[in-house]
Amino acid sequence: MKIDAKPLSRLRVVLDHTSHPGNIGSAARAMKTMGLNRLYLVAPTRFPDPEAEALACDARDVLEHAQVVATLDDALQGCAYAAGFTARRRGLSHPTSDLAQAAPHLMELASQQEVALVFGNETYGLSNEELSKCQLVVSIPTDEAYTSLNLASAVQIVAYELHSLALTRGAIPPTASAELAQLQDIELFYQRLEQTLIDIAFLDPSHPKRLMPRIRRLFARTALEKDELNILMGVLKQINLSRVKS
Amino acid sequence: MKIDAKPLSRLRVVLDHTSHPGNIGSAARAMKTMGLNRLYLVAPTRFPDPEAEALACDARDVLEHAQVVATLDDALQGCAYAAGFTARRRGLSHPTSDLAQAAPHLMELASQQEVALVFGNETYGLSNEELSKCQLVVSIPTDEAYTSLNLASAVQIVAYELHSLALTRGAIPPTASAELAQLQDIELFYQRLEQTLIDIAFLDPSHPKRLMPRIRRLFARTALEKDELNILMGVLKQINLSRVKS
Repeated sequence: MKIDAKPLSRLRVVLDHTSHPGNIGSAARAMKTMGLNRLYLVAPTRFPDPEAEALACDARDVLEHAQVVATLDDALQGCAYAAGFTARRRGLSHPTSDLAQAAPHLMELASQQEVALVFGNETYGLSNEELSKCQLVVSIPTDEAYTSLNLASAVQIVAYELHSLALTRGAIPPTASAELAQLQDIELFYQRLEQTLIDIAFLDPSHPKRLMPRIRRLFARTALEKDELNILMGVLKQINLSRVKS
Repeated sequence: MKIDAKPLSRLRVVLDHTSHPGNIGSAARAMKTMGLNRLYLVAPTRFPDPEAEALACDARDVLEHAQVVATLDDALQGCAYAAGFTARRRGLSHPTSDLAQAAPHLMELASQQEVALVFGNETYGLSNEELSKCQLVVSIPTDEAYTSLNLASAVQIVAYELHSLALTRGAIPPTASAELAQLQDIELFYQRLEQTLIDIAFLDPSHPKRLMPRIRRLFARTALEKDELNILMGVLKQINLSRVKS
């Protein structure tokens, strides 16, 4: 079976605050069986660890090349798109879709740019703040009576679903889509926007309410393009200049 | 999401000569997350076992009700159909299909009769003799460079694929859909935004280029909600006030 491996190589798996090193090893094995090799670990409780290595079996190379970083922002450096995974639907304002719907979209994006697949802690999952850094929340459908997927199992299912799409079928046609903005640049935009809203007295930093999360949610839906982000940054700069000058 | 649970209840998972009790526990958890509850263990090396129970988490009931039997024939008693799973294709005379092809067939069979899903030993898989007792050999597509799926991971993928088919493909409920903004109000926003961009000297009305069309395209993708539009209008108002005051 022929594979278009390119999009798979642009996917990174981000495990956020993983408690059990065994799960890191099992996730590495799960990834490698489906052709995914790029692992990012955000502040793992224990890593490296013999248990991770034991459970990785012949996927130890994935562990060896894993990037250990301090924050989710660090793990998303260089990415244009991030999908956060949850087992259940949340009472969340974020755009949510189930894995089967999201997978083709993710592979299409990965045909041109870096995409992060973000998995939270075994017990707590991803916090709302962490999810707010993702453009899409993806739920893995489970039985309603028992939704508690093991972390490595969740990685396995997602990797299987994406790998299945990479099986040709022929190459996935790139959509004539524009280059998306990098996530770290979007974060910078949010920071500057927040400061501007404070400067013009629209946002009271002592009572921020839910203004910034709402704005994040709005822009998350757009999957901002690079050129668009440049426009928005330009507008912010000009708002500031117009305040100083006038 | 509505489920036709009946076919799932006619599926039994048969783990043949499993060496590691941890894998039995993990497999039980994998099953239960996808609505499968009936586990048969053919001559497991160690069972029951505390490690199995620990890894089963809240799927211990699946272990408690597991049938421990001496031979594969025993495990297939009462079944109309058995599918044996392998990670790779075999040079086998047996009809082989991949999981995505086989899954609808298996669910159709399970809508009327008992179906067994048979998984072999961690190291050796299913022997040719064991496979010969199955009507169908099903392979789970993996990356060619590393085909070694963990046993519980294989169970998880198969259970996920079958469970997905049981989900009625009814519409995914819209996420707490908020009231969308009226188009005429969005037009008003574009007008005010354009005037503001002129006021702050970001947009030169004699050379507008394609700025406003680009901004329209960006916001068009979001399907602005009423509350969000109010926020944006409030920001514009405040930008203007901050210019006059300072």
